[in-house]
Amino acid sequence: MIPGIRFAGIASGIKNAALDLGLVFFDEPSYVTAVYTKNKVKSAHILYNKKLRSNQARALLVNSGCANACTGPEGIKDLKGLSEQLSSHLKVADDEIVFASTGVIGRRLPTETIAKALPAAVKDLRKNGVESFSRAIMTTDTYPKIARASFKGKKEYNIVGVAKGAGMINPLLATMLVFIFSDYPVSPEKIRRKFLQGAKESFERITVDGECSTNDSVMLFTRQGTEDPGCIDAFYDALFSVMKELAMMIVRDGEGATRVIHITVKGAQKKDIAEKIARRIAISPLTKTAFFGCDPNWGRIIAAAGDANVPVQPAKVEIILQGEVLARDGMEVPFDEDKLKKLMNKKELELIVNLHDGKASYDIYTTDLTFDYVKINASYRS
Amino acid sequence: MIPGIRFAGIASGIKNAALDLGLVFFDEPSYVTAVYTKNKVKSAHILYNKKLRSNQARALLVNSGCANACTGPEGIKDLKGLSEQLSSHLKVADDEIVFASTGVIGRRLPTETIAKALPAAVKDLRKNGVESFSRAIMTTDTYPKIARASFKGKKEYNIVGVAKGAGMINPLLATMLVFIFSDYPVSPEKIRRKFLQGAKESFERITVDGECSTNDSVMLFTRQGTEDPGCIDAFYDALFSVMKELAMMIVRDGEGATRVIHITVKGAQKKDIAEKIARRIAISPLTKTAFFGCDPNWGRIIAAAGDANVPVQPAKVEIILQGEVLARDGMEVPFDEDKLKKLMNKKELELIVNLHDGKASYDIYTTDLTFDYVKINASYRS
Repeated sequence: MIPGIRFAGIASGIKNAALDLGLVFFDEPSYVTAVYTKNKVKSAHILYNKKLRSNQARALLVNSGCANACTGPEGIKDLKGLSEQLSSHLKVADDEIVFASTGVIGRRLPTETIAKALPAAVKDLRKNGVESFSRAIMTTDTYPKIARASFKGKKEYNIVGVAKGAGMINPLLATMLVFIFSDYPVSPEKIRRKFLQGAKESFERITVDGECSTNDSVMLFTRQGTEDPGCIDAFYDALFSVMKELAMMIVRDGEGATRVIHITVKGAQKKDIAEKIARRIAISPLTKTAFFGCDPNWGRIIAAAGDANVPVQPAKVEIILQGEVLARDGMEVPFDEDKLKKLMNKKELELIVNLHDGKASYDIYTTDLTFDYVKINASYRS
Repeated sequence: MIPGIRFAGIASGIKNAALDLGLVFFDEPSYVTAVYTKNKVKSAHILYNKKLRSNQARALLVNSGCANACTGPEGIKDLKGLSEQLSSHLKVADDEIVFASTGVIGRRLPTETIAKALPAAVKDLRKNGVESFSRAIMTTDTYPKIARASFKGKKEYNIVGVAKGAGMINPLLATMLVFIFSDYPVSPEKIRRKFLQGAKESFERITVDGECSTNDSVMLFTRQGTEDPGCIDAFYDALFSVMKELAMMIVRDGEGATRVIHITVKGAQKKDIAEKIARRIAISPLTKTAFFGCDPNWGRIIAAAGDANVPVQPAKVEIILQGEVLARDGMEVPFDEDKLKKLMNKKELELIVNLHDGKASYDIYTTDLTFDYVKINASYRS
């Protein structure tokens, strides 16, 4: 619970009987710091939020079941209409409501259905409603994603973060839907740079399927009022821990995933080279299916590295999986295949690719590619 | 059959009882024109062939079951040793033998097994042996891939091409294993530019899984001797038709694929923009799983287009699938979902993405992403 913030999560009828509409209400105006998708195709909620004059909000309305992306000017008008109605229920100004949506792209929001459900959402607002809220924003997620942290300044401050995954995950500067709330009083101007850095070090370090979404949004809500700058480093520590925890929850719940692979590329001449190779391996379907099958197929890993459009000296590359050396100097080191298969049959794997060419490194988390990923996505809309 | 060329395909023991060793013998020295993978990690056969002094060959030895990639200097020595033995069997110079390999990366060639089988391969050489040869180079291919063409100059000339797919297919300037043979007398210098263009317009226009292989090779063997330049355009026409036919055979046999999708991006300001968007859609796992599930999920298509790192104006985009308009001006056009599902339940689909922003276009062929792709690749080595 965070003083001054109330949460709701209800079934509005967008997705039959499931929770599909989340509402957050701030007793006092809250600052908003946000980062949105780099995809050239952006959902209406992103275009709408960016047009709001101020960076403060009294409410956040989030729906699942419909992405409100590729809905043209009407998609934005739909949000304008909802903000007018919700503002009268909440007795706040209509430009103090921000939105987010997730679900199928290309469909208009069922605004009448949502409008009818607004009174129930307002009535459902509770200080301890964050779990209902987190469930209302889920799509193919298999569990709700909430992370908390607190730290001490003039008083004890709190952070609670809520996220949804679980497919179309390949954030670049932005990411899926993530909402982080804090009662720490601090302005967006002061924290924006650090906030972006936190997003880079957490949500940008995960990928499920290499697909950058149209709706990716990370929004941080902080309190207005007298600042408490003495504990700002403690705030960043707490914020980063919440971001990292949510990012890990998202990748662990990647669509159809049976394991998470932590890929570290090190020994690179530049961080940029390490990052490109790590990302290329992380989205390689052949590497990801091999992880699913517990196959220590390091040849696919080095082939992906060689296809990353950056300089690689194959004859220097070392590949270490679960602590076992599979290849050194770009060639196989004899290993016990059965032992490796057992070591790979885990939920979390450690892969190190050492280029032995410098001192820079980069790490990223990815999932395996499974039958269930295909199953989920061959029939997502129906 | 091509006069002066003999083919063999035998089971040498690399892959238990299956055909795994192909041999081609040229009665007269043949010119070789080749293009190899752009992957930074290149197989030993590519490094070896590139080092040969001349561009002529008397024999080509190809094995499946082992890629001879990431095998270091030993991988090249292995080929040197095999070339010495094979040259003595064939009574040709040892620097007139070229190689190609396909299979698991990181394993040394079983040179003793292959050496023992060389006499049987030589004995198996036949003018009509091309089908055995084509079967010997298969890995996860479900059928052999042979294409033929002929044309008239001073006499009738022939072209026969042989290819293997079917995974790790995302050629960039080079491609999988493709061998094309012709009795048309023409030098590599004369045809190299056109040959590269032909490869760009055929093998570079297909993708299965976005994975660029370490072993990709396209090799063209042409006759030496008095040239017959009067029919060179007929030669190019025949060559391009063989290349295109082989490329289509490869993508149709993509690992686990149930359909081939022909993606055309048009109305772009530049061809480069159209190509990047077409390639991004072609490797999008969410788009490919939707095609598998006969789901006209155009939102995933436009989301992939928006993630191609090139300028896109979402509000202009039109998407046409199987002749039916799914979206116009970046928004959904009402369509009959059941009708679309039926139209999509075909082996070959036509997708047009019109950016309405210029006159340039690009087209590419891709496959759907299926349970069988995961199945094949989760257990490829075992």
